[in-house]
Amino acid sequence: MAAIRRIDEVLRQPRMDETVEVCGWVRTRRDAAGLSFVEINDGSCLANLQVVVEQGLVNYTTEIRKLSTGCSVRVRGEMVPSPARGQAVELRARTVVVMGWADPDVYPLQKKRHSFEFLRSLPHLRFRTNALGAVARVRSALSFAIHRFFQEQGFLQVHTPVITTSDCEGAGEMFTVTTLEPEQLCAGNTFDDDFFGRHAGLTVSGQLQAEIFALSHSRVYTFGPTFRAENSNTSRHLAEFWMVEPEMAFCDLHDVMATAETMVKFLVTAVMEQCAEDLVLFEQFVAPGLTDRLLQLRDQPFVRLTYTEAVTALERSGKTFAFPVQWGSDLQAEHERYLCEEFVKASVIVTNYPEQIKPFYMRLDDDERTVAAMDVLVAGIGELIGGSQREERLDVLTRRMIAAGLDLEQYGWYLDLRRFGSVPHAGFGLGFERLVQCVTGMQNIRDVIPFPRTPGNAPC
Amino acid sequence: MAAIRRIDEVLRQPRMDETVEVCGWVRTRRDAAGLSFVEINDGSCLANLQVVVEQGLVNYTTEIRKLSTGCSVRVRGEMVPSPARGQAVELRARTVVVMGWADPDVYPLQKKRHSFEFLRSLPHLRFRTNALGAVARVRSALSFAIHRFFQEQGFLQVHTPVITTSDCEGAGEMFTVTTLEPEQLCAGNTFDDDFFGRHAGLTVSGQLQAEIFALSHSRVYTFGPTFRAENSNTSRHLAEFWMVEPEMAFCDLHDVMATAETMVKFLVTAVMEQCAEDLVLFEQFVAPGLTDRLLQLRDQPFVRLTYTEAVTALERSGKTFAFPVQWGSDLQAEHERYLCEEFVKASVIVTNYPEQIKPFYMRLDDDERTVAAMDVLVAGIGELIGGSQREERLDVLTRRMIAAGLDLEQYGWYLDLRRFGSVPHAGFGLGFERLVQCVTGMQNIRDVIPFPRTPGNAPC
Repeated sequence: MAAIRRIDEVLRQPRMDETVEVCGWVRTRRDAAGLSFVEINDGSCLANLQVVVEQGLVNYTTEIRKLSTGCSVRVRGEMVPSPARGQAVELRARTVVVMGWADPDVYPLQKKRHSFEFLRSLPHLRFRTNALGAVARVRSALSFAIHRFFQEQGFLQVHTPVITTSDCEGAGEMFTVTTLEPEQLCAGNTFDDDFFGRHAGLTVSGQLQAEIFALSHSRVYTFGPTFRAENSNTSRHLAEFWMVEPEMAFCDLHDVMATAETMVKFLVTAVMEQCAEDLVLFEQFVAPGLTDRLLQLRDQPFVRLTYTEAVTALERSGKTFAFPVQWGSDLQAEHERYLCEEFVKASVIVTNYPEQIKPFYMRLDDDERTVAAMDVLVAGIGELIGGSQREERLDVLTRRMIAAGLDLEQYGWYLDLRRFGSVPHAGFGLGFERLVQCVTGMQNIRDVIPFPRTPGNAPC
Repeated sequence: MAAIRRIDEVLRQPRMDETVEVCGWVRTRRDAAGLSFVEINDGSCLANLQVVVEQGLVNYTTEIRKLSTGCSVRVRGEMVPSPARGQAVELRARTVVVMGWADPDVYPLQKKRHSFEFLRSLPHLRFRTNALGAVARVRSALSFAIHRFFQEQGFLQVHTPVITTSDCEGAGEMFTVTTLEPEQLCAGNTFDDDFFGRHAGLTVSGQLQAEIFALSHSRVYTFGPTFRAENSNTSRHLAEFWMVEPEMAFCDLHDVMATAETMVKFLVTAVMEQCAEDLVLFEQFVAPGLTDRLLQLRDQPFVRLTYTEAVTALERSGKTFAFPVQWGSDLQAEHERYLCEEFVKASVIVTNYPEQIKPFYMRLDDDERTVAAMDVLVAGIGELIGGSQREERLDVLTRRMIAAGLDLEQYGWYLDLRRFGSVPHAGFGLGFERLVQCVTGMQNIRDVIPFPRTPGNAPC
């Protein structure tokens, strides 16, 4: 079946009167006098290919006139200019083979628009629709753009582990991974008897392990699944999501901010170039104003504010927030949105947060009240990226780990990185699904990941 | 610290007498009359940069003469032609800042060669060595080459889930993922009370979910971590490993074999181009003959054999195998190695295995005795890739799932893919660590993954 062409190819580079063979799924069928128009889609692009089937075909009455949404067909014919509006070219069919039917009485996807909520009940079919099909293409383009960005800049990709016995403190609740049967646990077995000889869980961040490689290969990134066992049933939370985490040796807070800004602009540029057709759909049907937001993200410099400056701005805003603003407390989504949407009207990087609201590994500033943290806040999303320079001084790190109540023996390997050839280093984490939401304007995080895992929900 | 240059850049494109600033870790220090030679490495390439430090520097006696393996330094100076053998250029230091010490009395990595086994006891330091540092670079290059291969051919990347309630039958034992505490389980709670409302585990394959996207976007691939809860403490098994799984609609057994062969040749070509220096190390110190094996893999066509032909060849080989050969039993590693290393002296694709030794989803051949399976066997490794055309006929698939004892209700979504717009489709799985072993010649799979998870072993 090697001769089959992708629909995006035949639409973008049509060669007139050339015989081509394409496959796809029927989106609509419209009958006219003596012929039918069948729109087919193969997922390679948003646009359908219009197939013109004349009644002379042997299976016209027996099959073509019975085609409905979701049927799969294989069509051979010639590409010709289309006399009708809506497309430049169409395929005049010589043969149409029906490969699979989709009984319209039971096939749940019909021509009408379905709500995203309804589609979530059909995890195995929902990506056949226009909007979610486009999300899948944008997601794939962004994923590849992330690899391109880092690889072109000489970063090494590191596969940090999913199963771990370390906890990136403060990141959240961990799932337990076990091979013990409930009966074994009740019969007195402990996690010491488990597969790994101790309690193991699903990683909440690859950062600590990525630091190992930053200390051997200088510039590295990890891009993989991370987990939170939090019982949050909201449009913003997933139990399983993907995270991009670069980690850079010989790098301070200013360098890591520059890298984050350059990366975001690179990714937005890439997806605007490669998924232009899909973005038009999101602008029209999902998120009016999206194009302007993406242009702002791509073209406007990110504004740097210290946490202290941000708090002052919030206090002077005259706004009434649900959460009070006070130096020392964490910024809430409403505060973050005010800062970028109203205060500076651009993306914002807030730096130097109070030490007590950030994890132990962030580098203590000279004032000993704040740490070299940075959060990137963007319109519509709030926090897109969180990062910091890491504490590279053995004595300071040890002190902060003790204060955080960590077991120094268990984290001996992490301290060794400061004991042997320590260097200034920094990194950040980008929640990949938040990025996809940011670029598509999709409101619910469950609609930008193929298989959302949430409380009570892992159907396949 | 933005002005810092990578060592591979200054070595590959040195501009003489230019002032540069580099950072890295000391590999060796050698003293001569009035000066010291310090070899530093930043992980960007295998080669070290030779830094020449003259005794006139302010910290020459107090610091430079105390530098030892593992210390981190920041050097500013001029690139000059090197009068000595071993390197074309060297860095004449104007300033050397010591960022971190590595007390030679306690730092476990010294100048001498360490065994891979010893290094496994230092998971946080071992990638600082030459051989494992090279493995990390090859692994990253291969990972990116995989993305390039599929993206350039119009494949969509799909992130299939790590946490799943489906089991890709026959693939192996699953880890349980839970948030229940042992006390809760003993107090009568069941997995119905668990986070996902049912028993959930770590995926053994993304194939079944990738099929969902092949049926909407035609050509897709998933590249992510997969898991086996098998108590196998060997040099070939990991509990957590990465797998590449493309899935293609409108694709039969012959197409999927062609894709697999093209992909392997693309990946070998990419790594030979990008990691030439690292491959020389493996040829010299790890796997003599590696270059010839890679050239064979890259240049020789893969030979196609049916399972029946392969069994006949094994029976006629005159060899005594530990496992007897008989039509209907699976091929063992010794059989696979004989086929590619001795029988055809090239990579082999064995097809059409007996139905009873392959999983339910493989397409039944017309003889109803065999299925449209294919395994790619390569010298030194054995099975590198396993794939098949998938059963797209609803009635045949249902029959085979019943025979395999599967719960049709639980797999209703999988059957729906054949109920609504079914098409011929095929795919395969490539064990990523086996590929890295194949390309580097590394013998133990634990040395080609950053953080090997094996029974009793998940230290960080």
